Amino acid sequence: MSAANNNKMIIFIGDGLGDRPVASLGGKTPLEAQETPNLDHLAANGLSGMMNPISPGRRVGSDTAHMAILGYDPFKYYKGRGPFEAKGVGLDLKPGDVAFRCNFSTVEGRKVIDRRAGRIKSGTDQLAAAVNAKAGLIDGVQCIFKESVEHRAALLLRGEGLDYRVTEVDPHHENADYPDCQPLPEAANDPGAIKTAAVVTKWVQLAYEALRDHPVNVERVAEGLPPANIALPRGVGTAVDLEPFSHKYGVSGAMIVEVDLVRGLGDYLAMDVIDVPGATGGQDTDEIAIARGVVEALQTHDFVLANIKAPDLGGHDGDAVKKMAAIAKVDNAIGHLLENLDFNNVVIMVTGDHCTPVGFMDHTGDAIPAVFYGCGVRPDEVETYGERAAMRGGLGQFTGEDIMCLLTNFSGVQDKFGA
Amino acid sequence: MSAANNNKMIIFIGDGLGDRPVASLGGKTPLEAQETPNLDHLAANGLSGMMNPISPGRRVGSDTAHMAILGYDPFKYYKGRGPFEAKGVGLDLKPGDVAFRCNFSTVEGRKVIDRRAGRIKSGTDQLAAAVNAKAGLIDGVQCIFKESVEHRAALLLRGEGLDYRVTEVDPHHENADYPDCQPLPEAANDPGAIKTAAVVTKWVQLAYEALRDHPVNVERVAEGLPPANIALPRGVGTAVDLEPFSHKYGVSGAMIVEVDLVRGLGDYLAMDVIDVPGATGGQDTDEIAIARGVVEALQTHDFVLANIKAPDLGGHDGDAVKKMAAIAKVDNAIGHLLENLDFNNVVIMVTGDHCTPVGFMDHTGDAIPAVFYGCGVRPDEVETYGERAAMRGGLGQFTGEDIMCLLTNFSGVQDKFGA
Repeated sequence: MSAANNNKMIIFIGDGLGDRPVASLGGKTPLEAQETPNLDHLAANGLSGMMNPISPGRRVGSDTAHMAILGYDPFKYYKGRGPFEAKGVGLDLKPGDVAFRCNFSTVEGRKVIDRRAGRIKSGTDQLAAAVNAKAGLIDGVQCIFKESVEHRAALLLRGEGLDYRVTEVDPHHENADYPDCQPLPEAANDPGAIKTAAVVTKWVQLAYEALRDHPVNVERVAEGLPPANIALPRGVGTAVDLEPFSHKYGVSGAMIVEVDLVRGLGDYLAMDVIDVPGATGGQDTDEIAIARGVVEALQTHDFVLANIKAPDLGGHDGDAVKKMAAIAKVDNAIGHLLENLDFNNVVIMVTGDHCTPVGFMDHTGDAIPAVFYGCGVRPDEVETYGERAAMRGGLGQFTGEDIMCLLTNFSGVQDKFGA
Repeated sequence: MSAANNNKMIIFIGDGLGDRPVASLGGKTPLEAQETPNLDHLAANGLSGMMNPISPGRRVGSDTAHMAILGYDPFKYYKGRGPFEAKGVGLDLKPGDVAFRCNFSTVEGRKVIDRRAGRIKSGTDQLAAAVNAKAGLIDGVQCIFKESVEHRAALLLRGEGLDYRVTEVDPHHENADYPDCQPLPEAANDPGAIKTAAVVTKWVQLAYEALRDHPVNVERVAEGLPPANIALPRGVGTAVDLEPFSHKYGVSGAMIVEVDLVRGLGDYLAMDVIDVPGATGGQDTDEIAIARGVVEALQTHDFVLANIKAPDLGGHDGDAVKKMAAIAKVDNAIGHLLENLDFNNVVIMVTGDHCTPVGFMDHTGDAIPAVFYGCGVRPDEVETYGERAAMRGGLGQFTGEDIMCLLTNFSGVQDKFGA
């Protein structure tokens, strides 16, 4: 494909947007109950449908969903979240690397006292440097550790014959002992998994030795704060070779997203991941700042994917009112785009990455309402944006894999296949 | 996937349920013409769509349809019906085995006088034992023969280098000569097919020699009954390795079905195949007994597939009134489930395995109306159960492959893919 014109494309994701009927809303969903004049404008003048990131009923995470929405088959390319986390903190990955997210934590012996080491705010760069000095090479495997925000960090292993089918070290509970890293049952006899597990177990021990008496921790203890005296790996994955977005679609792409995992995916795809001040990832996020960021990014890119995290939070909290307020923010952002972009030259799709029903408080595999609006889009007869309305949409059911194809068709930049 | 809660799942199949407009019903289909208050209740409060077992327009049998509905791709795993028949009569199969269904028949020379040997009722166990004694090993190939109900039986070949691409011996017509078994044209030069065909031809001859003067047949002739003096193989297939249902989905599964082939599939998938007294497989079947069986099976299983055969019979007979009466039975069964189960913890899908239109008198590849109802299901705006109503359903078109994914999503037992 090649950019044959100046038309622009937007995917706007309300994270966890879709829902199921809620009794306290009179059987409506939060999307149906909340007034959304701007989303309704898109639906009334656009083409609606129900989007399944992978296939009907398949439950996905934010990482796998965004991969699918950008046209990268997660069944083929998703090998755990670790690589996205590692990318997200700025580590460079090569195919075959094994990566983990880590927490700086506080332990006494093997018992985890505080999984986040009091949400340590500073000094983690010095702590990571000390870990790398002591545990940077184990059994011929490079171990690269890097701090992220607060207690968060990532660990990357690089060497011959590693395998990511190993257990986590983080016990996910406080007052639990942390275990050694082990091969997963299905890889119990795999030499790569055995080697990887052994390296991780040694690394955790060496990191502990580097951290326990580190001046940063001595000072924390003196201040009555829990020391960041260990780093616990979890969320393992292995790096795969993903075709850069611009190469796959022949258009330049940017991301303005509020989910670290998705930022990591953007880095992985060599998209421009743009920070927008005021985008907090919380209920208090500045949705107009995000929308302004999209308008600005379109000056220099053919394509922008934006994600507002807030709807997902209300879903996970089981709070329909909170979710409705977050949906109102998505609607505001769309309103800003309608006012500030010329949709004769812009096509937008609005959807969610998955449903997070307030009655389920986690992701479900339900289809997500979606609407395409703007240049090239042939409208259907749907008048509003919501679950039941989109079920009548002219697109019917479609999958994440279809999205970029639809967008590049509407924007007119897609190459013809055949004569 | 793993059973993370106590929610239960049902697939309820009206065999051959769907149809086409029938002139004598004023252009309605039998489903549309028959009053079905319980099915309509599901539709009015559930999520409808059109189900294609494999893909739009693809004509399927009951065996391939049920495989697809349970998520086993028939194009990948279906290698003839023989293995399901053999499983259905209790034979143990290993991958590579070649299996046939057989009829005990009556021949004079090579001419088939009665394909069902007067629907012989007793003594077939003794006849089978005599065949196995005489023809149990041919050219190093084990030949295992087992009687089933009436004139029905199965033959299993086990040995090195067999191939199932061979012709049938049963001529399917009376007063026709039965042929030797031959390799199919596409396997004319295949050593496995040549060997298999030769073994089958020898087996038929040896079986004849074991049967013609057997005391059971001597007595039948004395009573004026046609002797079961040969066994004619047909419906060949080869055994494939199918992942057990409980392993594939992490839930325990039972079947209550009226079709032997489907029972064989259930056995093959290591599901619990439950007999329900009163389930005759005919127009006179006791549908309430079947529904009671489903309720009972759900006490000890996470999942039940039920099948009522009757609608298919009216379809094959070209009898719309008979088919409507069978549909009323399906509706009664659903009524019993609605009265006796708590659908806050149960999700059901009702559909057919294929359409058997009374105007076509055989299976067609038309999509089949389907409805999901119960826990986790987000309703659409459809109000009744029928072909045209379901075309407006919120699920649109979906395939057999999607069904278990949708059900495990609604019941909440599906693992999340990704983070």
